[in-house]
Amino acid sequence: MRVLVFLDGTVADPDAPAVRADDLGLLRGDGIFETVLVAGGVPRELDAHLARLVRSAEMLDLPRPDVDAWRRCVHVVLDNWRGPGEFAVRLNYTRGVDSAGPPTAYALATDIPAHTIELRRLGVSAITLERGIDTELAGRAPWLLLGAKTLSYAVNMAAIREATRRGADEVIFIANDGTVLEGPTSTVVIATGRTLYTPPAQLGILPGTTQAALFLAAELAGWTTKIEPLTVDDLHTADGVFLASSVRKITRVHTLDGRPLATRDGLAAELDRLYESRY
Amino acid sequence: MRVLVFLDGTVADPDAPAVRADDLGLLRGDGIFETVLVAGGVPRELDAHLARLVRSAEMLDLPRPDVDAWRRCVHVVLDNWRGPGEFAVRLNYTRGVDSAGPPTAYALATDIPAHTIELRRLGVSAITLERGIDTELAGRAPWLLLGAKTLSYAVNMAAIREATRRGADEVIFIANDGTVLEGPTSTVVIATGRTLYTPPAQLGILPGTTQAALFLAAELAGWTTKIEPLTVDDLHTADGVFLASSVRKITRVHTLDGRPLATRDGLAAELDRLYESRY
Repeated sequence: MRVLVFLDGTVADPDAPAVRADDLGLLRGDGIFETVLVAGGVPRELDAHLARLVRSAEMLDLPRPDVDAWRRCVHVVLDNWRGPGEFAVRLNYTRGVDSAGPPTAYALATDIPAHTIELRRLGVSAITLERGIDTELAGRAPWLLLGAKTLSYAVNMAAIREATRRGADEVIFIANDGTVLEGPTSTVVIATGRTLYTPPAQLGILPGTTQAALFLAAELAGWTTKIEPLTVDDLHTADGVFLASSVRKITRVHTLDGRPLATRDGLAAELDRLYESRY
Repeated sequence: MRVLVFLDGTVADPDAPAVRADDLGLLRGDGIFETVLVAGGVPRELDAHLARLVRSAEMLDLPRPDVDAWRRCVHVVLDNWRGPGEFAVRLNYTRGVDSAGPPTAYALATDIPAHTIELRRLGVSAITLERGIDTELAGRAPWLLLGAKTLSYAVNMAAIREATRRGADEVIFIANDGTVLEGPTSTVVIATGRTLYTPPAQLGILPGTTQAALFLAAELAGWTTKIEPLTVDDLHTADGVFLASSVRKITRVHTLDGRPLATRDGLAAELDRLYESRY
């Protein structure tokens, strides 16, 4: 099942061509996106996703996204969806066919892959991969767009293929000094005692919407949350390591670089309950 | 003037939508490309461009491009072009709508921007910008796709915007240790005496088709050519610094980081003659 709606509210046939061959999204990966989870008719963290879309647009000097129009567009998607109660809505925003505008903007709803749903339950194996950057680079070199959610995700996809080649499901990127960064399409969260940790966006990574939702819920439930740099060693000694993202929710990492990672009894279920308590 | 031809030879309306909204080229910048200059009815360095397309496909685990089909496709473009004698043909090859294939493949011919033609004559000002990588990274971390010509060019475009913001035309990327890398869409070439230099692809940069054509012609004319690492200091002390690419040909850099770069009398014209002597 797929539903395609342009930002102006036009519903289009998802099987038909929708974008021109010279769109800068297609020629240069020049654009930004968000992926929103919809569950039980509710688009989760839509405000946070739209805020991040605006932030990414600023980083790429794209026209400021019209968040009200995006909100209406998502609701047209909801009205037209006839598939399962849980699905993903990709918000895609490219520079358009000409750098002078207008942007190409549409929302595309798709089913959550069965494999993703299965891995939420089973957990994943991950490998660490060098991202080739130092932790100060994002601040020094904004033209590298570190931490912007751009359409230029070829490296992220190549990293996941590298994991597959090595028999793993997922990747955790590491900076030159061994600092933990993020997954290619997820945020790293660890738990130790009653404290949750995630690395800071200043390292040049994406601020996570699902991670933020979890942290808010955890704070309300009496947990401590800390945003601070982590090492690979921290992952090995934590009570649990998780990858958070809209479609995977809070997925447990059970193996890292071939070594089993322990997860404290009941922890995965507790984090899942905390996250779900937001909705 | 624009001409759009799919790889199977189908001529399509370039003003009409041609690609599905869920194409992985549009969702993930997941694909590769080449830009071929056509002058006087001849697609220049087509073999080299197709060889590089095959190399990029290998780096991205894409199905091997059918070079004979691409050759036929380019000739359909030539048969249908009614514009100026010099134009650009973009070969675009994405992973398609599903990672299991088939890829989306088309050639798109467009006019060369008047500004690009003007800069061939006037030369360009450039700034050096940090690329954030070390010179060994490409060999260590193939998943970073350094040196592949992918559709994920958002950073390259952001770098050019940064140059514009600083009042310059172009960018020369620099590695962490100050080694000269490449332009966002060009190859760096310098001349000292009767020797031409360009940095090696092993640094994680694209092997240049126009630079290679120039070097072949120069060798035949008695020049020495060297592929070896360069420093920014080498640029300042050279007899001439140039950016080479299909559409810009061999464009002189007259200013680097605000400092004038001398170009030896007659050098720019001589390199231009050498390059044109190939055709």
